[in-house]
Amino acid sequence: MKVGIIGASGYGGLELIRLLHNHPEVEQLDLFTSSEEGTLFSNKFPHTKNLYDQPLLKIDHEQLTGYDVLFASTPAGVTSKLLPPLIASSPKLIDLSGDFRLKDTVEYERWYKKAAAPVEAVEQSAYGLTEWNTEEISKAQLIANPGCYPTAVLLSLLPLIKEKLIDASSLIIDAKSGVSGAGNTPGPMTHFSETNENFSIYKIHEHQHIPEIEQGIAQFGAQKIHVTFTTHLIPMTRGIMATSYAPVNSGVTKEQLVGCLKESYAGRPFVRVISESSKFCTKQVAGSNYCDIHVKVDPRTNRATIVSVIDNLVKGAAGQAVQNMNVQFGLDETTGLTQVPLFI
Amino acid sequence: MKVGIIGASGYGGLELIRLLHNHPEVEQLDLFTSSEEGTLFSNKFPHTKNLYDQPLLKIDHEQLTGYDVLFASTPAGVTSKLLPPLIASSPKLIDLSGDFRLKDTVEYERWYKKAAAPVEAVEQSAYGLTEWNTEEISKAQLIANPGCYPTAVLLSLLPLIKEKLIDASSLIIDAKSGVSGAGNTPGPMTHFSETNENFSIYKIHEHQHIPEIEQGIAQFGAQKIHVTFTTHLIPMTRGIMATSYAPVNSGVTKEQLVGCLKESYAGRPFVRVISESSKFCTKQVAGSNYCDIHVKVDPRTNRATIVSVIDNLVKGAAGQAVQNMNVQFGLDETTGLTQVPLFI
Amino acid sequence: MKVGIIGASGYGGLELIRLLHNHPEVEQLDLFTSSEEGTLFSNKFPHTKNLYDQPLLKIDHEQLTGYDVLFASTPAGVTSKLLPPLIASSPKLIDLSGDFRLKDTVEYERWYKKAAAPVEAVEQSAYGLTEWNTEEISKAQLIANPGCYPTAVLLSLLPLIKEKLIDASSLIIDAKSGVSGAGNTPGPMTHFSETNENFSIYKIHEHQHIPEIEQGIAQFGAQKIHVTFTTHLIPMTRGIMATSYAPVNSGVTKEQLVGCLKESYAGRPFVRVISESSKFCTKQVAGSNYCDIHVKVDPRTNRATIVSVIDNLVKGAAGQAVQNMNVQFGLDETTGLTQVPLFI
Amino acid sequence: MKVGIIGASGYGGLELIRLLHNHPEVEQLDLFTSSEEGTLFSNKFPHTKNLYDQPLLKIDHEQLTGYDVLFASTPAGVTSKLLPPLIASSPKLIDLSGDFRLKDTVEYERWYKKAAAPVEAVEQSAYGLTEWNTEEISKAQLIANPGCYPTAVLLSLLPLIKEKLIDASSLIIDAKSGVSGAGNTPGPMTHFSETNENFSIYKIHEHQHIPEIEQGIAQFGAQKIHVTFTTHLIPMTRGIMATSYAPVNSGVTKEQLVGCLKESYAGRPFVRVISESSKFCTKQVAGSNYCDIHVKVDPRTNRATIVSVIDNLVKGAAGQAVQNMNVQFGLDETTGLTQVPLFI
Repeated sequence: MKVGIIGASGYGGLELIRLLHNHPEVEQLDLFTSSEEGTLFSNKFPHTKNLYDQPLLKIDHEQLTGYDVLFASTPAGVTSKLLPPLIASSPKLIDLSGDFRLKDTVEYERWYKKAAAPVEAVEQSAYGLTEWNTEEISKAQLIANPGCYPTAVLLSLLPLIKEKLIDASSLIIDAKSGVSGAGNTPGPMTHFSETNENFSIYKIHEHQHIPEIEQGIAQFGAQKIHVTFTTHLIPMTRGIMATSYAPVNSGVTKEQLVGCLKESYAGRPFVRVISESSKFCTKQVAGSNYCDIHVKVDPRTNRATIVSVIDNLVKGAAGQAVQNMNVQFGLDETTGLTQVPLFI
Repeated sequence: MKVGIIGASGYGGLELIRLLHNHPEVEQLDLFTSSEEGTLFSNKFPHTKNLYDQPLLKIDHEQLTGYDVLFASTPAGVTSKLLPPLIASSPKLIDLSGDFRLKDTVEYERWYKKAAAPVEAVEQSAYGLTEWNTEEISKAQLIANPGCYPTAVLLSLLPLIKEKLIDASSLIIDAKSGVSGAGNTPGPMTHFSETNENFSIYKIHEHQHIPEIEQGIAQFGAQKIHVTFTTHLIPMTRGIMATSYAPVNSGVTKEQLVGCLKESYAGRPFVRVISESSKFCTKQVAGSNYCDIHVKVDPRTNRATIVSVIDNLVKGAAGQAVQNMNVQFGLDETTGLTQVPLFI
Repeated sequence: MKVGIIGASGYGGLELIRLLHNHPEVEQLDLFTSSEEGTLFSNKFPHTKNLYDQPLLKIDHEQLTGYDVLFASTPAGVTSKLLPPLIASSPKLIDLSGDFRLKDTVEYERWYKKAAAPVEAVEQSAYGLTEWNTEEISKAQLIANPGCYPTAVLLSLLPLIKEKLIDASSLIIDAKSGVSGAGNTPGPMTHFSETNENFSIYKIHEHQHIPEIEQGIAQFGAQKIHVTFTTHLIPMTRGIMATSYAPVNSGVTKEQLVGCLKESYAGRPFVRVISESSKFCTKQVAGSNYCDIHVKVDPRTNRATIVSVIDNLVKGAAGQAVQNMNVQFGLDETTGLTQVPLFI
Repeated sequence: MKVGIIGASGYGGLELIRLLHNHPEVEQLDLFTSSEEGTLFSNKFPHTKNLYDQPLLKIDHEQLTGYDVLFASTPAGVTSKLLPPLIASSPKLIDLSGDFRLKDTVEYERWYKKAAAPVEAVEQSAYGLTEWNTEEISKAQLIANPGCYPTAVLLSLLPLIKEKLIDASSLIIDAKSGVSGAGNTPGPMTHFSETNENFSIYKIHEHQHIPEIEQGIAQFGAQKIHVTFTTHLIPMTRGIMATSYAPVNSGVTKEQLVGCLKESYAGRPFVRVISESSKFCTKQVAGSNYCDIHVKVDPRTNRATIVSVIDNLVKGAAGQAVQNMNVQFGLDETTGLTQVPLFI
């Protein structure tokens, strides 16, 4: 396979390179960027020395032809314009940005404050939450790869909502992310001396992943709800934990919740249900494509606490994108994604 | 004033030394420990060289007499036995452990899994949440200094519960702490290579601060409720953030919540209400006795998100203890506590 | 005293505020900045809420009159122009930048790649390495506050060089700093995700503190030498360690080195010589004005390893600046600087 | 291949599992430990759930038979007794501890303060610095895998010493390591709250890797010298940087040093010489088996600064062990070791 990465210098792009480098079906990996055309990639990123001593290519429709698959990892508002014209030339397209995720383009414009992609392109695309949309992904040319927070949230909640074990109407989701989610552009929110040894809350009730979560619950869980969703910044690089709270429906036990989750993900290697845990943490999935889920019911309040962890750059971005590519090409979904988590 | 610190080698003790060292009314500071009697304190803790080149003293009833005030910062189950016999000799006693906090000794034994302190001693003690119990603290000989999580939670929620602006019956509290809260004993939960670059959830629904929070809400907020409370470990040393969620009562606005908080804490210098914030974070109180509170109402769900931050070792432990000492001795409550937060 | 801080929004400025806020002789603290005139300081820096709810003032010669002392904490190349005209109006001036440190203005221009300050102004200024230049500082109007690395290096080496206990001619200095030394402007070198969990070497043999170190050794140690000096970035916020290597002169023992250091700094409270240490580290001085020094002789190579630690923002910047102010005004040098290090 | 790991619960063991899991020639991986026999590995280490749900096996000579290769990653003093009796049953043995590294058993006992391994076993073993000892490694049954510091130091210095481009007689090596080098046993040196935001120097002139470095210089560089060697602890998990200083021999330029290094490692994929670098750092090799080297000559002092970085758990331990296994079995040395560094 001949693969191109648009936005190769961003963190999504770097992680795609890390994963695709050892993917057995990838024969060629070309790197595109909006600036620095001609710069040797390994001069900019010495960690790829000897591996990617090739020049960065200009994002240009002509140059972007002839690929089996193109990944795009760019800021919001770029691929809505860049990808639709490429559909005709028929490579598989996997977009890691939010531009094709929301089927309701009015919602997109409200939350992203940018012009939405053309409706037809949005309609043609498949939402790439692999475990819940495998069939559609396998047929789609354009994949809207999910956001990092929605991936962690939806994977842990959808089975319980769909099976009506929890009361989704009063769902509260307290999410926490490492700093790499903010990307590679330096700014005050990512300045080391003010981020290190600090824990902050941001975009309270206003994060653009809210409509994506609600859309996913409607699509796969068959419930139309509004969630309360907050996001926090952890002084570390990789990892997301989503802690969700909902009342259990009458008489539902922890064992039922665990059973439902295990059943839902039987045969899906990347979702692991951890029934007992003395230390449930982000590091247990670091560097890997796993999503681990843990759940408890508080007998004093009859509320469930549902916790999930992912590596935001892997299952929350590049890893799930590769998983989706595997599905599109009929490969085993784990191809190239068998990394053991880096617990240390 | 002649002051003794019992448990001077723990983190609570070290922080008491840091704060009391520059307290204008403290003339003598003696350091007691359960082990290492005779060791020069500054040999064990080189950061105190030239300041505390004095031997550690043995915790011994005879040696513990003659002090104006004794602080005890020891693990649960120690002061329940150690302090009651000292009451007769009448120094002011400020206990930083949980041993005298719960008025219901059965609850203490259920959550702490240790024998409770004698009922009379517990009844004599005042719960040291300074801003809410000033009068009682000023008269009490024995202060039960609050836990770190309850301090952050109660200060931010009590005004809103008391004034019935939020529906406390479905209160969810998602709390996060730096690692210093786990104390100075090395163990797997605090081993650097497994704690660094990691975020974990622990003691889900089972933290011993739950009954303390519920007791505080009953005592000062006049509501008997059960809370859903979870605790997370942040890869940093100092700081707590408590993010709480509750529906607002009919028609209540953010402005009303802010107004209520500001009014409640008018004249109380250590509680700051931050109405607007682009980055609300733990570092804005680091090293200081402040508790900062921020609140938002989600118009889509009519739920309030109430956030508070403290330095767990200062307002969550040693700082509030000194504040309580000031109240006991009729000093201005800010005496010795005017440190500017170390934002950097 | 009426005090002004020029460059109040930088890290040097923030730290001056932290220290001067509790300085007993400071009555008024005005904050000047090159931009954001009129912004309320505490809106920009919420950690100062209730403390500094005052507008930022414009740096303007007219507004800068009437102060007893002006601190300037600005990037290189600013005070060389800003301060000389203020000399006439006779406040004490303490410059935290490098603009007046090098007596040889040709050297300044070579290393800083900027136009040097007027020669007369440079000549009038006193180099503010407090322990070594007290007399001159006490008489000077303009103080060139030392760089962070030179402070750590010179304090640890000068006594040994001056007393000819080590062979300075082959001195090698391997210095390491926390990230706050890079200031508050976001950039690739300070972007969290690339700085965290990373250790880098930078400006090998090219750091502008090299001529300052060599000038200090010539001035106070009476030796004209060239040093090999490298600098490394530690993934933490505060703290510098300088590890220096030199052969000991014939027969010199560790005890002689320790003795020499202790004698040199007898009566100087901020320099502590730690003769034995199981863990010599930056945290033992964090947040304080101490410089701790530790030394060992390798019997296999007859070389001494001389290690010193400071908090780069305190003894390496704002703390030493306040110490110099104290000396200028005839106060005890520890006034306002009695903070106990934050070991935790 | 059937592979056993002795000491699977330690960090060396965990990293061996991570690397061998995707090694194409490994068919079975059995995990041995000195305690917790029978515990399911993934219960102890949830990050391996679904991958290693197998019981830990007891270290027992009978059980240790039938393997093609046995890795041992245990504390000093264990394999000196454990491995010699296994030699007869003829599996390949790769020891990650220091027990067989020093050919001079008297030196071993002096620096390690433990009884040395039997002299015959030590003599039979090959020192596993792969790039310098390939031939011997390919024939040896027992490999003494190098220490983390010696690997970083020797790879960067040996070519320059062997070619007499630098004066090794006054070599100074200032080494820095992440905390994972201290292993998985909690203690004061690795307690998060005292390690985080802290940088310390330890074992000054006394580290047990000193004789290993000197032996390597004698064996491969043909010079008998004593080095000055210090070690520092960086507040991060993975990574080592060694900064070495030596005078260049008369007239030698940076270009000659770079040329010598490049020539020495031509054809050796894991050693990369970085001639120009704006940010030379440990992250550029994180998670990979690379050793990157950078060098500069100070024209003012005619000294070279030679810097090398490795991931202490990979090229400094498990990665080099797998590389040695590849050499022993006649595989390409990169088999299973093609991970791209995790720069983020």
